Amino acid sequence: MMRLETLSVFPEMFEPYMSTSIMGRARSAGLFSFDAYDLRDWTHDRHRTVDDSPFGGGQGMLMKPEPIFEAVRDISGRCEPAPYVVFFSPCGTTFSQRVAHRLARGERTLFVCGRYEGMDERVYELADEVISVGDFVLTGGELAALVVMDAMVRLLPGALGDDLSSVEESFEEGLLEHAQYTRPADFEGRTVPPVLLSGDHAKIAAWRRSDAVARTARWRPDLLEEACLTDEEWAMAQEILESQHEEGSADV
Amino acid sequence: MMRLETLSVFPEMFEPYMSTSIMGRARSAGLFSFDAYDLRDWTHDRHRTVDDSPFGGGQGMLMKPEPIFEAVRDISGRCEPAPYVVFFSPCGTTFSQRVAHRLARGERTLFVCGRYEGMDERVYELADEVISVGDFVLTGGELAALVVMDAMVRLLPGALGDDLSSVEESFEEGLLEHAQYTRPADFEGRTVPPVLLSGDHAKIAAWRRSDAVARTARWRPDLLEEACLTDEEWAMAQEILESQHEEGSADV
Repeated sequence: MMRLETLSVFPEMFEPYMSTSIMGRARSAGLFSFDAYDLRDWTHDRHRTVDDSPFGGGQGMLMKPEPIFEAVRDISGRCEPAPYVVFFSPCGTTFSQRVAHRLARGERTLFVCGRYEGMDERVYELADEVISVGDFVLTGGELAALVVMDAMVRLLPGALGDDLSSVEESFEEGLLEHAQYTRPADFEGRTVPPVLLSGDHAKIAAWRRSDAVARTARWRPDLLEEACLTDEEWAMAQEILESQHEEGSADV
Repeated sequence: MMRLETLSVFPEMFEPYMSTSIMGRARSAGLFSFDAYDLRDWTHDRHRTVDDSPFGGGQGMLMKPEPIFEAVRDISGRCEPAPYVVFFSPCGTTFSQRVAHRLARGERTLFVCGRYEGMDERVYELADEVISVGDFVLTGGELAALVVMDAMVRLLPGALGDDLSSVEESFEEGLLEHAQYTRPADFEGRTVPPVLLSGDHAKIAAWRRSDAVARTARWRPDLLEEACLTDEEWAMAQEILESQHEEGSADV
């Protein structure tokens, strides 16, 4: 069973999410365990202080090094194996589906979540990996940890109730996923592409692949570099890129 | 007051986060309001069905178009102004600090959160904007909405308890933030850079700027293109990039 652990000053933020829907079901089914530790349990003053003002001046408070070092060392030593320790920072590796796959193969992962203006730089020495969930700033690492844990858990065999459903998705083949439709076939005049109603499975598969290539070319051409495309698919993608380029020029 | 609204099949997922810490305080202080709508309130069958199987076959269930169209139209018409409607999809604009600033200027924003294998493609017609929080797949849009709302709220004047604290941060000047330190000055032999203890504010500011440039060059050289650097700073960044390149070559 995969072990997920978090260390933060708001341990109660995780439970509602970790016990609902797919996460809750996967946890009840024993696919992973989750423990949220309270950083203040490793403080030794009456006020359970975890922050202090920055050297050299500046606004806001930073997380002090001592409780974090003590907590990570203590939690790590509680059982085998020692956890893979993940911190969050804009300086880290950008989180992606590839990173999710890699982390999901880990036995035990501890996410250390910051708050306030940041952490004393020395604590990053404890990190096996520093992750950035994106080029934006959050009020704390808790949401970042939830994002990473959610992406990891849904990759565990059985988590989605159907072992294959995480395979045909965006990023899994280096492409965005094709468009999808359900009933009604005609909603207020908006109709479903006829091929999807044809029952011809080969044609449907071809349409979906072609739609995935087209959508990727249109919205995320940067992904095409690493996708495995046939010559025909490259030609189609190229055509879309060129027509977008022309539209762009026409706007000027 | 900024209005934030969500539409999802798990409306209860938001409240614990939206009422805790900085988000909770900003909300109590009247900086924003938050309402989570339950998509099932716009279904008309006994089972309150929101999903159906995909046309053309395939695994999993898709979110049906009717309840989403009905809900978004209904919520939009409840008060003025109509909300700026945001959907989440890997096909969308990648979320960034710049997008957070833009959205935070909005009066009313409605986030439509998907679940299951995805949504019927026709619903995206309702979107004023489609956002992707990153190149990874989550079990639903709820976490994506929380990430975006968190990043927006902390930019509201007064949200951090100090109007200036969101300015000196990563991405705000196109650079990663400089390293920060708090007491003790010596933690188990790990010392703080002496300049930060000097009390010389000009020197401290120079060290911080230089550290921000160095960290960006080391970890996120892609950001340097859009940063405003002096000639001297460019030269330093260049030197770091070249030394990393040499290290890389030495590894081969």
